[in-house]
Amino acid sequence: MAAMAKKADIGLFGLGVMGSNLALNIAENGFSIAVYNRELGRIDDFLRDSGPLAGRILPARSLEELVAAIEPPRAIILMIPAGKPVDMQIAALTPLLAQGDVIVDGGNSDFRDTVRRVESLKGTGVTLIGMGVSGGEEGARRGPSMMAGGDLQAFARIEPVVMKIAAKARDGEPCAAWLGPDGAGHFVKTIHNGIEYADMQMIAEIYGVLRDGAGLEPAQIAGHFARWNEGPLESYLVEITAKVLKAVDADTGKPMVDIIQDRAGQKGTGVWSAIEAQRLGRPASGIEAAVGARVLSSLKAERIEAAKLFGEPRGAGLAPEILDDLERALFAGKVVAYAQGFSVMQAASDAFGWNLPLPTIAKIWRAGCIIRSRFLGDIADAFAGDPVPNLLVAPAFATLMREAHPALRRVVAAASLAELPVPALSAALGYFDTYRQSRGTADLIQGQRDFFGAHGFERIDREGPHHGKWGIDEQPVTPGSTTY
Amino acid sequence: MAAMAKKADIGLFGLGVMGSNLALNIAENGFSIAVYNRELGRIDDFLRDSGPLAGRILPARSLEELVAAIEPPRAIILMIPAGKPVDMQIAALTPLLAQGDVIVDGGNSDFRDTVRRVESLKGTGVTLIGMGVSGGEEGARRGPSMMAGGDLQAFARIEPVVMKIAAKARDGEPCAAWLGPDGAGHFVKTIHNGIEYADMQMIAEIYGVLRDGAGLEPAQIAGHFARWNEGPLESYLVEITAKVLKAVDADTGKPMVDIIQDRAGQKGTGVWSAIEAQRLGRPASGIEAAVGARVLSSLKAERIEAAKLFGEPRGAGLAPEILDDLERALFAGKVVAYAQGFSVMQAASDAFGWNLPLPTIAKIWRAGCIIRSRFLGDIADAFAGDPVPNLLVAPAFATLMREAHPALRRVVAAASLAELPVPALSAALGYFDTYRQSRGTADLIQGQRDFFGAHGFERIDREGPHHGKWGIDEQPVTPGSTTY
Repeated sequence: MAAMAKKADIGLFGLGVMGSNLALNIAENGFSIAVYNRELGRIDDFLRDSGPLAGRILPARSLEELVAAIEPPRAIILMIPAGKPVDMQIAALTPLLAQGDVIVDGGNSDFRDTVRRVESLKGTGVTLIGMGVSGGEEGARRGPSMMAGGDLQAFARIEPVVMKIAAKARDGEPCAAWLGPDGAGHFVKTIHNGIEYADMQMIAEIYGVLRDGAGLEPAQIAGHFARWNEGPLESYLVEITAKVLKAVDADTGKPMVDIIQDRAGQKGTGVWSAIEAQRLGRPASGIEAAVGARVLSSLKAERIEAAKLFGEPRGAGLAPEILDDLERALFAGKVVAYAQGFSVMQAASDAFGWNLPLPTIAKIWRAGCIIRSRFLGDIADAFAGDPVPNLLVAPAFATLMREAHPALRRVVAAASLAELPVPALSAALGYFDTYRQSRGTADLIQGQRDFFGAHGFERIDREGPHHGKWGIDEQPVTPGSTTY
Repeated sequence: MAAMAKKADIGLFGLGVMGSNLALNIAENGFSIAVYNRELGRIDDFLRDSGPLAGRILPARSLEELVAAIEPPRAIILMIPAGKPVDMQIAALTPLLAQGDVIVDGGNSDFRDTVRRVESLKGTGVTLIGMGVSGGEEGARRGPSMMAGGDLQAFARIEPVVMKIAAKARDGEPCAAWLGPDGAGHFVKTIHNGIEYADMQMIAEIYGVLRDGAGLEPAQIAGHFARWNEGPLESYLVEITAKVLKAVDADTGKPMVDIIQDRAGQKGTGVWSAIEAQRLGRPASGIEAAVGARVLSSLKAERIEAAKLFGEPRGAGLAPEILDDLERALFAGKVVAYAQGFSVMQAASDAFGWNLPLPTIAKIWRAGCIIRSRFLGDIADAFAGDPVPNLLVAPAFATLMREAHPALRRVVAAASLAELPVPALSAALGYFDTYRQSRGTADLIQGQRDFFGAHGFERIDREGPHHGKWGIDEQPVTPGSTTY
């Protein structure tokens, strides 16, 4: 009671799987950390399991103890479910904190909530950092990728810890950064997850072509992905695809993937990113297709009934030479999905005045996070060069796409004919083909809109809005008049 | 000043193109109508242009005059821009109105605003009907399709006028209905517009295949659409497509469509419907693709640059037999787009407790509105039969789709190979192929999610959540633990 114990460098609230692993990561990196969990029993278990790291862990049995255990200005990382819990715990913590203290929301919060919370803390002296943490449980333990947003000075309080515990790219750079004010970090994490959805869906589509079109066994398909992981597709998701497909169920001796129900779950960030893309007016069709596919996957009973009505996919009609195209098709699809994601971030940056550093974002995704890949280094380079309106037209990517898009279209065509679903790959192709067409077909749409709604159109040969004479009866009022 | 003039049956505020035409329609149908416009000069012009109908039109020069001119309980239709103006004018009108009076918002309001406004008027004695009015200016003048939501008794006040001025289907039924409480009408109108986007985009894609793939001139393409308009595709949009494509620009003598800039505008309802579909967890990939295509169309300068990098679409490589598939491909794509739209409305009905009558919705879209078609009668019949989870599996549509989907896949395949963008048609195919596959590829996605995030999965052979042993190192904490 008499001796003042040394205070912890940082605090963490929420010892779920992500929080526990992040706490161990912090302790292992030499920092002392005060931890608290609402369910107190969990704290003892955590201490017991933390082995030699227990010496750097200060358990707290209440919010007050947690706050008291941290060296001011305090930094407390919340690793709790997004939504109401975050509001509740910020409300509970704030009165216990002092000027200069920092709350870090490390959950998958909706960036709009983060913006609102940053605003509502103004004047309290306490600041909020919204920080996306990616990499799953393994990433949290060994080095996640972290995307922070909020007050830059507040970020400075946690920067030494964050940079130390972050994943390191091959060049040694930590995969964490302050990306902009208020919701910038959580927004980028949302789009990261959206891209993750698209990437996973495209991989699943290629798996479907190999399984149902080429009739390969999971172990054979695993071989293809393992091989691709040594080329331009090298990435964590392709790597684990090979591992998942190779895994065997101990109980049945069957390939694991064959005993897993084909009903995908989702936790909301895919939907959020699709909605934000819509709000910002940037097509993210790869993400939309991926979210849609997960929804349809969940309708297992409906799909079984529909299959009775329409028959199972013909599948096997696939020409064998398509196999040689799959790697490049997946790569091309992936380039488009990432181009869309970065385009959405650019639009958000403009809309919210965040000044998001796109090259930095690509760099801090190179390691630690779920979509980490070799490819992200190339994206960082592309955005570090001359400004481009779209990743697709950055010189290096234009070269890659010129080489890869024919394979993508052959795969989409073959899968379409073989009745194998490729919604994300075909969405990517549709985006590419629309974007690279100097004269599209919206002239007809503008004609229709003017015909039925007098919306007017631009002419190719002169300025200003125009209306067609469509041979319909005289209109009684000025077309397009918006008076009221 | 001494004699009391007879009061008007109804009032209308906002003499823009839609409002003027709706007022003339009401007058022509024998009702007296008081009209007001914020910009007063417009009122005189309107009266001057209204010809013999002027006798049934009572001009008002202020909100007070407007209110005083209407027979109580009063009904006033607002035909003013959605958003703030509606809030402002409701606020201005409400104090002037009495118990039982009804404000009808006939604009394209966001249904969430309508829900909020209905709520905020509670206790004032004044009620709000949110009513989508479709059909463009011609529909407003000759008979629109109207989708009303709000208090049923309040709707009764306007029902005689609404039913009289509505478009009539071939069987004589008026194309207007009360569809449910608060935002139901505006929601249905939003989805109507979303479907309209998808329908127009699919038509534009087929036009693109004919133009760039088959090398046809607009007049020739018009001929195809005119012919298709005599078959299952018979619809207003196909009809006007033929007319737009046939139109010639008087100034240049060129086909009108060739002098229209290929940059499509949009006013928000497409985006809204895509967002609501995402929120409700129902894939609306046809709408998403259509919104995306309009966005990309607007990036003309970027497209021109991209075309320099990637070349113009090969196009002409299209096999001529594909032309025979286009009609059925468009039909199949359309079925999917409508199936998606109705699925979104069913989800909204469930989520908001609206009990939306899907057969009625299909019926009141048969005439008056932009997407009016023969086809909608079949949809009404399909939903009036045994309940189905999706239009695609309603017996009549299953038969149609069995016959039509092979053409859709041949067209998507051919267009993909010919570098012609078909994002909406391929989105429709992707939805169909995903929905009709009893075993999809989400087993792999669930394996990946469990691998990196310990999200767990269902097994096909037993109940409950399971985790894989993926051969990664022992986790220090219980996987999937959500304690905090």
